[in-house]
Amino acid sequence: MNPASARPYRGVFPVAPTIFDDRGELDLDGQRRCIDFMIDAGSNGICILANFSEQFVLTDAERDLVLDAVLKHVAGRVPVIVTTTHFASHICAERSRRAEQAGAAMVMVMPPYHGATIRAGEAGIYEFFATLSDAIEIPIMIQDAPVSGTALSAPFLARMAKEIANVAYFKIEVPYAAAKLREMIRLGGDAVEGPWDGEEAITLMADLDAGATGTMPSAAYPDALRRIVDDFAAGRRDAAMAGYARWLPLINYENRQCGLLACKALMKEGGIIACEGARHPIPPLHPATRAGLVEIARTLDPLILRWGR
Amino acid sequence: MNPASARPYRGVFPVAPTIFDDRGELDLDGQRRCIDFMIDAGSNGICILANFSEQFVLTDAERDLVLDAVLKHVAGRVPVIVTTTHFASHICAERSRRAEQAGAAMVMVMPPYHGATIRAGEAGIYEFFATLSDAIEIPIMIQDAPVSGTALSAPFLARMAKEIANVAYFKIEVPYAAAKLREMIRLGGDAVEGPWDGEEAITLMADLDAGATGTMPSAAYPDALRRIVDDFAAGRRDAAMAGYARWLPLINYENRQCGLLACKALMKEGGIIACEGARHPIPPLHPATRAGLVEIARTLDPLILRWGR
Amino acid sequence: MNPASARPYRGVFPVAPTIFDDRGELDLDGQRRCIDFMIDAGSNGICILANFSEQFVLTDAERDLVLDAVLKHVAGRVPVIVTTTHFASHICAERSRRAEQAGAAMVMVMPPYHGATIRAGEAGIYEFFATLSDAIEIPIMIQDAPVSGTALSAPFLARMAKEIANVAYFKIEVPYAAAKLREMIRLGGDAVEGPWDGEEAITLMADLDAGATGTMPSAAYPDALRRIVDDFAAGRRDAAMAGYARWLPLINYENRQCGLLACKALMKEGGIIACEGARHPIPPLHPATRAGLVEIARTLDPLILRWGR
Amino acid sequence: MNPASARPYRGVFPVAPTIFDDRGELDLDGQRRCIDFMIDAGSNGICILANFSEQFVLTDAERDLVLDAVLKHVAGRVPVIVTTTHFASHICAERSRRAEQAGAAMVMVMPPYHGATIRAGEAGIYEFFATLSDAIEIPIMIQDAPVSGTALSAPFLARMAKEIANVAYFKIEVPYAAAKLREMIRLGGDAVEGPWDGEEAITLMADLDAGATGTMPSAAYPDALRRIVDDFAAGRRDAAMAGYARWLPLINYENRQCGLLACKALMKEGGIIACEGARHPIPPLHPATRAGLVEIARTLDPLILRWGR
Repeated sequence: MNPASARPYRGVFPVAPTIFDDRGELDLDGQRRCIDFMIDAGSNGICILANFSEQFVLTDAERDLVLDAVLKHVAGRVPVIVTTTHFASHICAERSRRAEQAGAAMVMVMPPYHGATIRAGEAGIYEFFATLSDAIEIPIMIQDAPVSGTALSAPFLARMAKEIANVAYFKIEVPYAAAKLREMIRLGGDAVEGPWDGEEAITLMADLDAGATGTMPSAAYPDALRRIVDDFAAGRRDAAMAGYARWLPLINYENRQCGLLACKALMKEGGIIACEGARHPIPPLHPATRAGLVEIARTLDPLILRWGR
Repeated sequence: MNPASARPYRGVFPVAPTIFDDRGELDLDGQRRCIDFMIDAGSNGICILANFSEQFVLTDAERDLVLDAVLKHVAGRVPVIVTTTHFASHICAERSRRAEQAGAAMVMVMPPYHGATIRAGEAGIYEFFATLSDAIEIPIMIQDAPVSGTALSAPFLARMAKEIANVAYFKIEVPYAAAKLREMIRLGGDAVEGPWDGEEAITLMADLDAGATGTMPSAAYPDALRRIVDDFAAGRRDAAMAGYARWLPLINYENRQCGLLACKALMKEGGIIACEGARHPIPPLHPATRAGLVEIARTLDPLILRWGR
Repeated sequence: MNPASARPYRGVFPVAPTIFDDRGELDLDGQRRCIDFMIDAGSNGICILANFSEQFVLTDAERDLVLDAVLKHVAGRVPVIVTTTHFASHICAERSRRAEQAGAAMVMVMPPYHGATIRAGEAGIYEFFATLSDAIEIPIMIQDAPVSGTALSAPFLARMAKEIANVAYFKIEVPYAAAKLREMIRLGGDAVEGPWDGEEAITLMADLDAGATGTMPSAAYPDALRRIVDDFAAGRRDAAMAGYARWLPLINYENRQCGLLACKALMKEGGIIACEGARHPIPPLHPATRAGLVEIARTLDPLILRWGR
Repeated sequence: MNPASARPYRGVFPVAPTIFDDRGELDLDGQRRCIDFMIDAGSNGICILANFSEQFVLTDAERDLVLDAVLKHVAGRVPVIVTTTHFASHICAERSRRAEQAGAAMVMVMPPYHGATIRAGEAGIYEFFATLSDAIEIPIMIQDAPVSGTALSAPFLARMAKEIANVAYFKIEVPYAAAKLREMIRLGGDAVEGPWDGEEAITLMADLDAGATGTMPSAAYPDALRRIVDDFAAGRRDAAMAGYARWLPLINYENRQCGLLACKALMKEGGIIACEGARHPIPPLHPATRAGLVEIARTLDPLILRWGR
C-alpha cells in the first residue's frame, strides 16, 4: 500500500529543517540523514519547505533541489507535505503542480502575504485557494499562523473547506488554537478532513481534546510526540496527558527560547548533521541557551541524541 | 521591619485580578479575599492594576478605589507594586505620586502607547521615565511587553537603569526573554536592581538561569512558584527544575488557553470570589476550556482550590 | 430650530483640539475661543475628545471638564459629537449617556482596543455596540481607523447599521476609504444615515464622489472645506474639485508632516490660543516643519490666521 | 559620458511597473515600451523590481528575465537601480552581484523581513548590509518603508552610511519623511550621498526642502516631477512649489486610491501597454476609481496619455 494515499492523514508530521553546511550552502547529504532520522523516529509524515525550514532564505532553484532530493529519498515511505506558499495565485498553483508531480501527498499554503503591509482581502484569499485547488488533485492544508498577518476566521475556514474541493486540512497555530479548532470543526463538519495544530506542539494536549487529528511540530522528537498522539487516538488519554507533561519542559524551551534552531542544534548534538547553523542573518543560539536546550533534552533521552551515534 | 522597604525586592509578585460582581461592578470584598489568598499563598509582593488586572476596563475613579482598598487592606504585610501607565508623562507622574502616597512600594509603567499606531520615540520615552522618576521616591519597574507595541532594546533599558535615578526594575515578557535579560544584566550591571520576568511564568526556569531575581505571574498559584523561586535562590536548582516541570502543564494551559481568565476561574472554583467574569466585551472561557483548566489544576492541588473552602 | 435635531447630519464637523497652557494644564478659555472660531468658520458641527483632541492624554476628570465646558459654550449653536470610546462596554455606555445628558448630538466610538494586542472579536464588537445603542437615544458614529488595529469589513459595518438601532454614522479613514464607503453604502442602503470620511480630509474629493455626506477634518480650515462640501452638495462638482485642488497642498502638509499639531500651530499663529503645545511626550513640530506649514497656509488666507487678530 | 557613472545620482528615478499580458505572463515587449516611455518622459534613471513593480509576485527566473530585458534595452541611456532584497544575506549579495554584472548602477535593498513577524535585529541588519557591500562595487540604496515592518532610526542609518562602504543612498518613505531626512542628513553628513524620498512623491516638496536630492515615484508622470525637481535644483523654489501644487491632486489620488495600479491604468489608457492588470490576487481598480484617476490625469495632460498614441 502506498502510504501517501492513506487518507485521511493523521498523526505527527514534523517540519524538516533545511540543512546547510558551514558556508551556508545546501547540504543534501545531511538533508537525507535528517529525513531518515525523522522516519526512523516514527513520523507519520514529513513537511518540507515550511517557515521552520527557513523557506524564506532559499532561492527558487534551491527549493526545487530540496523538493526533488527529499521526495526521491523518501520514496513513498511516508507521505510528504510540501509548502508552496507564494503571493501570486498562479505561481503558487504552479509550484504546487510541480510538488504533486514530484510525489507530494499534500501542499501546505498560507494566504497571500508580503511583509508587514501587503495582504489580500477575503475575496482574494478565497479565489487564491480556488485557483490552487483547480490546479492539483492532492489536498491542500491551509496554514493559519501569525506570520501571514492575516486573520482567518473559523467561519471563513469552514466555508472554504466546504466549497473548495481540495481544501481539507488546516494547521491552526494562532493564540487560543484549541478554541478555534473546536469552532472550525463544529462549523465545517466532515469537510474539515484534517484539523491539525502546529507551533512545536506547545498546545498539543488541548488541541487533541478539541478534536485535532494531526500535529506539525519541529523534527526534534517525533518519537515522543508519536507516543502521545497514538495514546490519545487509542483512547489512553491519561497516558497521553502524562507523556505530554513529561515532554513539556523541552517543548516549551524549544518554543520560547530557540525557535527553528532547536531541532538543528539537537541534530548536530546527536551526530545527524554536521552544521547546525541557519542562514545569515538568522543569529545562532546563545551558548547558554543552547546548553539549556541540550540539558533538558538529555533528561528525556530522545532518539535525536542517539540516532546518529 | 517594613517589608516594603526591604530592597532589593525579590521573588514572586503576582498580579492581582480586579474582582467584579455579576453586574460588572467592583467587588471590593472579593478583592480583599483575593489579596488575602495571595498573601497566604506566599506571594513576596503583589502587583495591582496591571493589564492582567483588566486596568483597561476601569475608570479613573475605579482605579483609585482599587488602589486604596488594596493598599489599606494589605497594610504593609507585603510590598505592593501599582501599575500607573498613562500616555501623558505628567498624568503618569501624578498617578504614581498618588500611589506612593497610598503606600505603594514601586510603580510599574510601560512606555507611552495608544492603540495600534500612537507611540513615542526613544527620546520621548527617555524623557517620560525621567519625568516620572523626578516625581517620586520609590523605584520604577519598566514593563517590556508586546502590548505596548514598542521595541525597547536591551542597551536602551540598561542606559535608563544607569541614568534615571528610580528606574531599577524591569519586567521582560517579550519573545526570547531569557536572552534579553542576560544582555540587559551584562550591560546594566548593578543599576539593574531587579531583572524580572512575567507572562504567567511561562519562561521562568530559563529566566532564572539567565539571572532573573523576580517574577510577576498571575495570582493563581503563588504557592507553587514561590517554592520554585526559593529553591533556585537557595542553590537547589534541581529541585527548582523539577518543581517547574511539575507545574508547567498548568502554567502552559493558563498562558495559551485562558489568559487573564484562568486565575479568576480558579478563585471561583476555590470559593475565594463569587464571580469569575471579566468585564464585557472580554468573553468568558469556553466551558471545555475551563474544564480543562480545572482538571489540570486539581492534579496539582494548588492552595487556590482549597483556601476558600 | 434646534440644529442638533436636524438629522441627517451633513457637512463639515471638525475635531476640536484640546487646548493646554504652557504647563500642560487645560486652558478652558482658550478652548472656548477655539470653539468660537470653529463655529465662525462655518463648521456644520464639532467633534470633541477624539484622538486628534489628544483624548489619550487626559484623565477622566479632564474629559468631563472639556465636555461640560464645550457643550455649555456651544449652547446649541451647532451639533456636537462627543467621542466616548472605552474598552469596556458599560463604561463606554455610561460615558455616552453622560454626553447625551450634557447635550451631545451624537457619540463617536471605536471598537474596543487596547495597545498593540488586546482586541475584541466580531461577536464582541457587535455586542459592544448593541449595549451602547441600548443605553442612549442619540446616533452612534463608528470610527473606522488604523489606530484601533481592528479590521471592520464593509459587510459587517452595514450589518450593524441595519440591525443596531442607533448605529447610523460611519467615519471611514482607512486606506482606500472611497472604495470602502462605496461598498458600505451599496450594502447598507438607508441604514447608513451618514457615510463620512476623516483623516484631515486628505481623500475628501474621492469620498464625496463615492457618496460621503460628511467629513471630520481637523479644525484648521473649516471655511475652506465648507465651501468644497457645499459646492459638491449643490451640484457644483467642478467648483468643489477646484476648491479641493487649491487647498490640497495645505491638507497634504497637515496630513503628512504635522498631524494633530498643525491646527494648534495655526491657531497660535492666528492669535486664537496662547499655547500650541501638545502634552508631553508628544514632541513639538520641528521649527522648519512649522515654518513650512505657516508658509503654505498664508498663501491660502484661511480664517484661522485672521480670526483672532 | 556614461550617465550611469555620473555620481552622485540625482533627480527622478521612477519605479518601472512589471508588465503582464492578459494571462498574467510577462509581456517583455510591453515592458520595453514602458521603459522607453519612462526615458522619453525625462526620468533621470529607472528602478526595477521594486514592490511597486510587484516583485513579490515573480519567480526568481522571471526576475532575471525582467532584469536582463530592461538593462539590455536601456543600454546605458539612464542609470538603472535594481531591487535585490532577499532575507538571506548571501542571496541578496548574489542577486546584487548579478545585477551589477548586468549593468545596474545601484541596488535598492530593504532590511531582511518576512511576513508579519520574522525580522532581524539591528546587529543582523548591519551585518546584512556589510555583507552586501563587500560583494559589489556599486552603491546601495537602503529602502526605509513600512512594508519591512522594521524601524530604522536616523542615527542607525547615518552610522551605516559612514561605516559601510557602499551604503550611500536612502529612500525614506515612512511617516514624517521630511523630518527623518533632515535628521539623517545632519547626522550622516557627506556619507549620505543620496537622501531621497519615495511613496509616489506625495511628500516631495517637503522632502526637497529638507534636503532630498532624488525621488522615486511611480512611472506615471516623470515629465511633471522632473520639472518640479529641476526647478527646485535650479533655485526656482516658487516654480517648484507651483508645479507641485498643480500635480498634487493626481499624486494624491494615485497615493490614496490606486497604489501600484495607477501607473498601469494610465499606460493602458495612453496606449503604451496592452494590459493594465496586476497579477492575481491583486484586485483591479474599481471602475469608478479608475475613472476618477483618468479624469484628473486628463486635466493635467501628462505625456503618459499621449506618448503611445
